[in-house]
Amino acid sequence: MEDRGLILVTNDDGIEAPGLKALIDVVRDFGDVVVVAPEQSQSGMSHAITIKQPLRVTVMEESPSRKIFSVNGTPVDCVKLALNQLLDRKPDLLVSGINHGSNASVSVVYSGTMGAAIEGGINKIRSIGFSLLDYSRHADFTAAKIYSKRIIDQVMLNGLDRGICLNVNIPVGSMDEINGVKICRQTDGHWQEEYDKRKDPFNREYYWLTGYFNNYEPEAKDTDEWALRNNYVSIVPISTDYTSFKQLDALKSWKI
Amino acid sequence: MEDRGLILVTNDDGIEAPGLKALIDVVRDFGDVVVVAPEQSQSGMSHAITIKQPLRVTVMEESPSRKIFSVNGTPVDCVKLALNQLLDRKPDLLVSGINHGSNASVSVVYSGTMGAAIEGGINKIRSIGFSLLDYSRHADFTAAKIYSKRIIDQVMLNGLDRGICLNVNIPVGSMDEINGVKICRQTDGHWQEEYDKRKDPFNREYYWLTGYFNNYEPEAKDTDEWALRNNYVSIVPISTDYTSFKQLDALKSWKI
Repeated sequence: MEDRGLILVTNDDGIEAPGLKALIDVVRDFGDVVVVAPEQSQSGMSHAITIKQPLRVTVMEESPSRKIFSVNGTPVDCVKLALNQLLDRKPDLLVSGINHGSNASVSVVYSGTMGAAIEGGINKIRSIGFSLLDYSRHADFTAAKIYSKRIIDQVMLNGLDRGICLNVNIPVGSMDEINGVKICRQTDGHWQEEYDKRKDPFNREYYWLTGYFNNYEPEAKDTDEWALRNNYVSIVPISTDYTSFKQLDALKSWKI
Repeated sequence: MEDRGLILVTNDDGIEAPGLKALIDVVRDFGDVVVVAPEQSQSGMSHAITIKQPLRVTVMEESPSRKIFSVNGTPVDCVKLALNQLLDRKPDLLVSGINHGSNASVSVVYSGTMGAAIEGGINKIRSIGFSLLDYSRHADFTAAKIYSKRIIDQVMLNGLDRGICLNVNIPVGSMDEINGVKICRQTDGHWQEEYDKRKDPFNREYYWLTGYFNNYEPEAKDTDEWALRNNYVSIVPISTDYTSFKQLDALKSWKI
């Protein structure tokens, strides 16, 4: 399999997720496919890595052009194990998803899907995280697959700058209902938590995380939230260098 | 306690870590202190949040000017619970650490210490993550405390731009040995994994994560790794907007 392209596929919803199967379908024309995905759902695991537990790999499928492995770890563990142990060469592309649910705006920070894509970016691999704005297990991935393929085509053709990955979010709807693609910046917003406080049968309190997204700039047409609300696919290029260069200049005048 | 400043303290090494105690010492002159820290070590948990498990809060100490809570979750869970449930008003400052070990360069991405600081930044709170380059439980925090206090003084005096937090790393050494402070950008580098592959007593393979840091730009004097290697405290301003504006302009010419 030396001369063909090599595509690494992962996700955070776990090896059984329909969105993962949709993404495997999309990439098979681009080369040999190796899937390394978490055994179980890893939503909200961000860029977490497993340090204190050993990792185990289960071979789910192995053929000349396709291998599927599951790992008892996080999405970033999957990428690291793939690059160091499971792949015979550096992949030409890393794709993560298709996530069940939005990773737009600040959700990029919490997302395991995007954690894997960012890990690819850190390793200087062209990497894309895909998310569909539908949490249902029975979500329709038809339009998401068409747009994912078009975006991968462009990434293979044009490349990405060193250390950059893409955060792609796709609205719910048919091809007729989606208006196209917008290149966007990350919306400024935050998740407003509203913990659900309960008492267990032993009268001890516990909390469930709930909340809603608070958009600080709902009118800004260059943001991913605006694009999605207006039925566009949003693409945000994500840097793995988190330095704020603007603040850096301000800090240099401080007297410490 | 309405008129005094309010300082939220957290970490990722857990409620019992000596580095947390050092940081509590540093901030007590700045106002009322509320500590909300993980019950157990959360190294490598990045920006992970707990979705599928309920969270429990244990009150460790409660006095008019100081409250200490532990949480069975991640550093980001601690910040979210503090802001939504445990604090009676928005804090004037969030500090995370002092971490036992470096969070320079790309380690910012994996770090639970910095996950908490970034969560503060997302919530528009002045936030700083502190790390000392010494993993030992018996690390000497003397110089780290002096520099942390100086940096907090400057943040309280000058503020930080909206959505920005600081990643502060402190070299090992006495005040005589440390050369001062450098304002830096995040070093371009990555962790090169070398999984330690073993067999369990039942002949099943498992992997331990190990590896080393690979610096792509060891000679770049404006980076945090260079500063630390030359015995300076490094400060990197971290943006919670991960958009790559440079790549954004390039993407706009793509035909999708």
